[in-house]
Amino acid sequence: MISEYRLKRTIKFYETDAAGIVHFSWFNRYMEEAEHALWRAAGMSITARAKDNVGWPRVAASMDFHRPLHFEDEVEVWIRITRISEKSIRYGCIMTSDGHRVATGAMTIACAERRPDGSIVSRAIPPDIAALFSVAPEPEEAVS
Amino acid sequence: MISEYRLKRTIKFYETDAAGIVHFSWFNRYMEEAEHALWRAAGMSITARAKDNVGWPRVAASMDFHRPLHFEDEVEVWIRITRISEKSIRYGCIMTSDGHRVATGAMTIACAERRPDGSIVSRAIPPDIAALFSVAPEPEEAVS
Amino acid sequence: MISEYRLKRTIKFYETDAAGIVHFSWFNRYMEEAEHALWRAAGMSITARAKDNVGWPRVAASMDFHRPLHFEDEVEVWIRITRISEKSIRYGCIMTSDGHRVATGAMTIACAERRPDGSIVSRAIPPDIAALFSVAPEPEEAVS
Amino acid sequence: MISEYRLKRTIKFYETDAAGIVHFSWFNRYMEEAEHALWRAAGMSITARAKDNVGWPRVAASMDFHRPLHFEDEVEVWIRITRISEKSIRYGCIMTSDGHRVATGAMTIACAERRPDGSIVSRAIPPDIAALFSVAPEPEEAVS
Repeated sequence: MISEYRLKRTIKFYETDAAGIVHFSWFNRYMEEAEHALWRAAGMSITARAKDNVGWPRVAASMDFHRPLHFEDEVEVWIRITRISEKSIRYGCIMTSDGHRVATGAMTIACAERRPDGSIVSRAIPPDIAALFSVAPEPEEAVS
Repeated sequence: MISEYRLKRTIKFYETDAAGIVHFSWFNRYMEEAEHALWRAAGMSITARAKDNVGWPRVAASMDFHRPLHFEDEVEVWIRITRISEKSIRYGCIMTSDGHRVATGAMTIACAERRPDGSIVSRAIPPDIAALFSVAPEPEEAVS
Repeated sequence: MISEYRLKRTIKFYETDAAGIVHFSWFNRYMEEAEHALWRAAGMSITARAKDNVGWPRVAASMDFHRPLHFEDEVEVWIRITRISEKSIRYGCIMTSDGHRVATGAMTIACAERRPDGSIVSRAIPPDIAALFSVAPEPEEAVS
Repeated sequence: MISEYRLKRTIKFYETDAAGIVHFSWFNRYMEEAEHALWRAAGMSITARAKDNVGWPRVAASMDFHRPLHFEDEVEVWIRITRISEKSIRYGCIMTSDGHRVATGAMTIACAERRPDGSIVSRAIPPDIAALFSVAPEPEEAVS
């Protein structure tokens, strides 16, 4: 079972804005990149069940921004599973760069099924998927 | 003094993802678009003081997603000022489409100054800017 | 029959980059926005036939960049149909701002069908769609 | 001297659109990512001279799209310098995935200087930068 993942990535030029720093909308994308890498590390693609009309819409996402990121900065995106319920998964995310914390986020995703009429309804997480993941231990705070 | 703004926009194709709906990272961008329209309605650009090295970094952003948005949907992004403190402004945001609430968000921005050495420090909101804005009344909940 | 469309839009902050100007990747998006507005002006959505597995993949896109665009600039994106063949449509695009030409582009799209096995093959443009569009006259060059 | 670079990357979910494939606007971003990696391989950041007001605006970019890319596809972005003139550099770019060519592009960048009055004028490439790069040999066509 897997409970966390540390993704390293380099800031791209198109992720910056006219203030010279990464536009805040990108942090949710970084968090999702780390989530998808976590799923791959667990042995499956998050879209693997799309053929069965099972997907994972985002229910909530939040981010606190502590320090700016710049072009070509190296960032580590550390995502951890903080809660698994019958129908949803919650993540916590800490981003660091050059030894400093740059952002802290959280995201909740729901397991959902697309009905033949096109409507989307929440559903229980399939047992074989639930079996892949576990809740991560609380992090010991080291970076500032 | 201005305290809220309702921005109408049409969903672009490049804002959708392979799930057929708007990618969740776009909602923060819609919220910021409405914020910048609010500032223009108040008579100034949010970047007007960049020449004086005064800017408005985002401190926190959160979004709850209630319903999906699709290509060519019409969405109303209603942003309201919910708090003005000495050094920061907080917004609340409700997005609706076709009579339904699709997302509820919040965002805090800080007034900041870029020092000659490149460092960025928070500072009091300049009085002439603070004079443009006021806190909006609580919304009466109408959409579901 | 429709052959051209002039879309007006305002530059968003998230479209700029650390050089202080719109990142070049956005111009193809502006061109596509104008294309989709052209189709709506012709009375249909470009995705209307997705339910019949008929779509319009992009075959080629090119852009020459003449002047930079900045946050809150107003730009007019003028798209014209320059060629309609049995299986494809070609557009020309001129973007202007404040009386100056900022970019000149072209894009070719193909009519394609998704087969039950998932493969995508080019196909003739359905006659009812071809009947909506015509080739635009050559532009008289006015802006520099 | 360096003349080419092969960047490997994985397709992100937010790069796909409602047609289920990578939106065409991303290919120019992939080409630029490879360009910046090429510059780093040559020992410098493309923004290193921004402090001297020397930058590299894009003059033209074109892309032909041969095959679609999907979420989690692995793509190789092979960028080559095809021309170096006094004031500009031209690149050719071939993207492949799973042994197939997916796109072929080209991009021209100009060396430019920002004047104290804010205007941007083209200028000769600084000799120490020109000394880093050379034109790549013509590729032997292997992928289809």
